[in-house]
Amino acid sequence: MRIDDLDTPAVVIDLDRMEANLARAQQYANAHRLALRPHIKTHKIPSLAQRQIALGAHGITCQKLGEAEVMAEAGLEDILISFNLLGAAKGERLRALARRCTLSVVADSGAVAEGLSALFAAAGRRLPVLVECDTGAHRCGVAEPQAAAALAETIARLPGLSFAGLMTYPAHGGVAATAAWLDEAVACCARRGLEPEVVSTGGTPDLYRAHEVAVATEHRPGTYIYADRSLLARGYCGLEDCALSVLATVVSRPAPDRCILDAGSKALSSDLLGLDGHGLIVEHPEWTIHALSEEHGHVRIPAGAAGPEVGERVRIIPNHACVVSNLFDLVHGARAGRIEMAYAVAARGRMQ
Amino acid sequence: MRIDDLDTPAVVIDLDRMEANLARAQQYANAHRLALRPHIKTHKIPSLAQRQIALGAHGITCQKLGEAEVMAEAGLEDILISFNLLGAAKGERLRALARRCTLSVVADSGAVAEGLSALFAAAGRRLPVLVECDTGAHRCGVAEPQAAAALAETIARLPGLSFAGLMTYPAHGGVAATAAWLDEAVACCARRGLEPEVVSTGGTPDLYRAHEVAVATEHRPGTYIYADRSLLARGYCGLEDCALSVLATVVSRPAPDRCILDAGSKALSSDLLGLDGHGLIVEHPEWTIHALSEEHGHVRIPAGAAGPEVGERVRIIPNHACVVSNLFDLVHGARAGRIEMAYAVAARGRMQ
Repeated sequence: MRIDDLDTPAVVIDLDRMEANLARAQQYANAHRLALRPHIKTHKIPSLAQRQIALGAHGITCQKLGEAEVMAEAGLEDILISFNLLGAAKGERLRALARRCTLSVVADSGAVAEGLSALFAAAGRRLPVLVECDTGAHRCGVAEPQAAAALAETIARLPGLSFAGLMTYPAHGGVAATAAWLDEAVACCARRGLEPEVVSTGGTPDLYRAHEVAVATEHRPGTYIYADRSLLARGYCGLEDCALSVLATVVSRPAPDRCILDAGSKALSSDLLGLDGHGLIVEHPEWTIHALSEEHGHVRIPAGAAGPEVGERVRIIPNHACVVSNLFDLVHGARAGRIEMAYAVAARGRMQ
Repeated sequence: MRIDDLDTPAVVIDLDRMEANLARAQQYANAHRLALRPHIKTHKIPSLAQRQIALGAHGITCQKLGEAEVMAEAGLEDILISFNLLGAAKGERLRALARRCTLSVVADSGAVAEGLSALFAAAGRRLPVLVECDTGAHRCGVAEPQAAAALAETIARLPGLSFAGLMTYPAHGGVAATAAWLDEAVACCARRGLEPEVVSTGGTPDLYRAHEVAVATEHRPGTYIYADRSLLARGYCGLEDCALSVLATVVSRPAPDRCILDAGSKALSSDLLGLDGHGLIVEHPEWTIHALSEEHGHVRIPAGAAGPEVGERVRIIPNHACVVSNLFDLVHGARAGRIEMAYAVAARGRMQ
């Protein structure tokens, strides 16, 4: 089947571009002796996680327990869940998962650590827990290096847990601040007799500066596998590196300066990530997807530009690849215009 | 099982509120002799569509061929697909669907009508086609009443098609303009010897003004079944009418003025619909969900407000219920704190 034969809207992954993106990151990590632990949130596809491992990744990162279960079921052996896990409903699932793979998790408070300890105190082996650190992104994470070391000590003392290291999702552009923060946190840990085995940073925008955080032992990029319009806008990559696109069809041509695509917020998501418009139309970069309904993309065509016929197909580089993956049950892998395979997005919809 | 036992994030439908929303709309439609043709995009659940029919709806509306297939498979008998359908890949599916239910579709251009005609010319029975009209929303639709009548005539002449009427998705607040537009379109049709059997309007915000469009024969509300924060903000309903909420847990308390929920853009979507923030926290309306990561809701807590403990659970009325349905494979129906049933969101992810 050719790409031209796919019904729309559909997600197409350019496999050559994807492979190049994966290889480049792995080579970089190898050159800097950094472990790569890709975040599967971007693709949610077990066979792509296996490909990342085959290329040299040390393990994978998941954000959800349910994602990790899907990946373990598919044979992935080393999984970090980089999200505070709590609540009785997750307990037995978490214990079962820890029995079938090398699992590590995070905590940014005593409450989370104590909940994990209660689950694993009688489990026979200790659950490795990393301290999540807020090095500037102001999401989760302990706020100060001293507090990271104090929580590390709590974790090390709690039954059923072992202190495995430090983890941060850094602020984009905050490499120097992250490095300074983690340096101090490692020093604070040392003063308490604790050595973080793993110091884990994340994010694609600063992926190729990961080595500037001297104490980092691993990096967790997600979007690098596909890239997207937000990374293009940041100068992270070129259009030729964008591996994921959404195929769409012009379904209406209500006025000379407007057309309507069959890809709306349920295909592209409403994520703007600070950008104007809802995606880059590869064939017509001068068009603007200025609004989305659920199933309609509203396109503005500049005066003087040749407009499309109803039925014309376009490729859209979405603002944010990860959320697009999350909307489709199936994506298509293509090379040279031909569909080579369909991937089930098996970890999509694993909300808990 | 009680709501308190559900793992988070999860969608809970208050069944009493939902029933009241459905009954009120049906009573209104009956009182005004308007056919109700609910849009299932909001719930995507066959048994809820069947409930709408049982209460008196004349049929249902779908936006996607794939949604309509799921609904027909579940026994729904009268389906309008209110979206321009084109492309070879949909042809055989559309013909098969027309054989198993009473199907009608729309067109807003000769190109779409001709494509449909090519599919149905040899089908043995005519496909009813409504002319989509742009009465002010500036999405799809023919731009002028005269053009609507001209397209109606084209449809009436094309092999395999019958002209079934006029359809609009009106601009919110545009009831008077819609009424004037459709009046003129009906008159233009009459001058060509055509009578639209159906004149169909849509949307929940102006649902209870549908009778002000005197020529309208049916209305297609979607969100009315659940309501949401956008309808609350418009004054359409009260908080006690909001039937869909997203349960979430406080997973981090990084600072006195902030907490982090386990519901991000993959649970709430990024749809703002002109509102500030990403949802209303029922227990703490003074908190603001000021940003979303994929799996994190970032909450600002006003100075002086009592902050939550890690592990506290909250209910969120999302900005836009329809896109939340589209993110979950399963939603839970509850009464008086107890979960009565789980609904598979069977038509979710039917992209084509």
